[in-house]
Amino acid sequence: MTAAPLEGLARRPVVAAPMAGGVSTPELAAAAGDAGGLGFLAGGYRTAAELAGDIAKTRALTSAPFGVNLFVPGDDRPEPEALRAYAERISSDADLAGVTLGEPRADDDDWAAKFDGLLADPVPVVSFTFGCPTAERIAALRERGSRVWVTVTTPDEALAADAAGADALVVQGSEAGGHRAGFPAGGPEEGGEIGLLPLIALVRTVSGLPLVAAGGIMRDAAVAAVRSAGAGAAQAGTAFLLAPEAGTHPVHRAALRRPGRTALTRAFTGKPARGLVNEFMRRHSAYAPIAYPHIHHMTRPLRAAAGKAGDPDAMSLWAGQGFRLAEERPAAEIVERLSP
Amino acid sequence: MTAAPLEGLARRPVVAAPMAGGVSTPELAAAAGDAGGLGFLAGGYRTAAELAGDIAKTRALTSAPFGVNLFVPGDDRPEPEALRAYAERISSDADLAGVTLGEPRADDDDWAAKFDGLLADPVPVVSFTFGCPTAERIAALRERGSRVWVTVTTPDEALAADAAGADALVVQGSEAGGHRAGFPAGGPEEGGEIGLLPLIALVRTVSGLPLVAAGGIMRDAAVAAVRSAGAGAAQAGTAFLLAPEAGTHPVHRAALRRPGRTALTRAFTGKPARGLVNEFMRRHSAYAPIAYPHIHHMTRPLRAAAGKAGDPDAMSLWAGQGFRLAEERPAAEIVERLSP
Repeated sequence: MTAAPLEGLARRPVVAAPMAGGVSTPELAAAAGDAGGLGFLAGGYRTAAELAGDIAKTRALTSAPFGVNLFVPGDDRPEPEALRAYAERISSDADLAGVTLGEPRADDDDWAAKFDGLLADPVPVVSFTFGCPTAERIAALRERGSRVWVTVTTPDEALAADAAGADALVVQGSEAGGHRAGFPAGGPEEGGEIGLLPLIALVRTVSGLPLVAAGGIMRDAAVAAVRSAGAGAAQAGTAFLLAPEAGTHPVHRAALRRPGRTALTRAFTGKPARGLVNEFMRRHSAYAPIAYPHIHHMTRPLRAAAGKAGDPDAMSLWAGQGFRLAEERPAAEIVERLSP
Repeated sequence: MTAAPLEGLARRPVVAAPMAGGVSTPELAAAAGDAGGLGFLAGGYRTAAELAGDIAKTRALTSAPFGVNLFVPGDDRPEPEALRAYAERISSDADLAGVTLGEPRADDDDWAAKFDGLLADPVPVVSFTFGCPTAERIAALRERGSRVWVTVTTPDEALAADAAGADALVVQGSEAGGHRAGFPAGGPEEGGEIGLLPLIALVRTVSGLPLVAAGGIMRDAAVAAVRSAGAGAAQAGTAFLLAPEAGTHPVHRAALRRPGRTALTRAFTGKPARGLVNEFMRRHSAYAPIAYPHIHHMTRPLRAAAGKAGDPDAMSLWAGQGFRLAEERPAAEIVERLSP
């Protein structure tokens, strides 16, 4: 009854989530694949050339299939005044760190070049975040033999992705760490992000596509649970953050081991993302405009300086709600711990 | 392995949640119990005498066991100025409805008298919301033969309830409709409410007590899922809102059948609660102070007038995230639909 999104790709129902910003390394993708799961490379924030290099490196490390995730360009058009006000608000943080804030600007994350690269040199799975590509683009990838997954956060997004021809849906519950994957101009109002179990049930009412469940999944029991609920596989990100193969920053690793809580914030990038609550979030979350990737560019020098200085209070520390269960183990063992 | 919180109480792992404000009627509790689940009476907002009447009525309707839920008094101490500002903010709504806002005041919900009533005339289960009673109170109920359940929203709350001697924990995920059950002065920051699956996993790391999972559970697949995740039973509220036995207001019923979304808000009561997004929430959620039950009393005449006028835009329309799956069926059929 439960559709199997990983048929022919992996023998365990476990996907190591794409985590952009250096976390999902070729080593992590290869280790997850070798352990019987499905590894992913995160194309976000990478140039087309860098992504091609990551793909080549992964292929050199493993013969297991793996996926590549791309960010779909959005359409945030923030008022210049709102950007100026936020820059002024966080300017004392920049002064303290001895850096100049970045220029807040739009960009398309080298989208077209990366997409064309995946057409020219296909990978087994291409997943999308922040939107749904056109039906033509999806068909082009499928013609090259790639399976296409679209990440959704609401039933409406699921309906759109199904209609566009996706092979499977990654359903991202509110529990998930990192950016909310919702489509441009969509997404729930504040406090309305949908939890994983009702999201699976609601998506099932509008689409029969295989589902990959994401958000807060740390152990085999949760994987069994989402399979009972109707998903075919589980995608885990936070569970892998402490693996030696992950590119997680040392300051981020240390923060994950301390008691704490997560919250959604636009403070670092202009788009809601879940991370460990720190001083920057406490002070600025309520004021950050809807402005992605403008705020991402603005805060980048600040975050980089905080990382270098070992200061967890001015970095983004993405983490899902189950982060206290993250373990420092080789990725292969984590895949096993997640296998029902 | 999975502990059975309903052993000897119900043959199906389904609890009909206590929903205060007139929704959980004796008829609903009796029908859920007769169908093999466990019904609940909602003691919140009722006087001790009214609750005693509800208990008597339920006993007359069924021989099945049932539970009673009580609100634990909180300690919100809002600034008078914050209450005045909010009253001023919503005064035009009151003018439009032709009512005077209620006096914002603290009260203990007739707590002591209701508690003593349950000691004098015990029921099979007493559950608590908004806090954990003292170990002495819990022991007193258990001596009378009642099982004591405490509703928790974080691992810290679970630890406290376990230490106080609870028999089982109702773990309320962020998906749940109605009030967040968190303890006074605790609870997550905004955007930090924990989804049901990671909450179950996190609570399991601090307590071995039987768990009743609550939040967004609408069908058998979700009940199977939370049992896979480690809960012994599921508590469903929104799933019963359209049952004829429920006391759901007709305006609320109609709103549940329309497309919409839910969000958390303090706008109606001063305490976060999840409901269908309407005009009152859109306009006032961002401004409502932490002030329960002060704001509850303040908005009561407005909500009552809106109900009479058939205006869904000035009422609280509590609903969990799975509300689109609510069905107009007898409660017995809903218990069956929820049984794996």
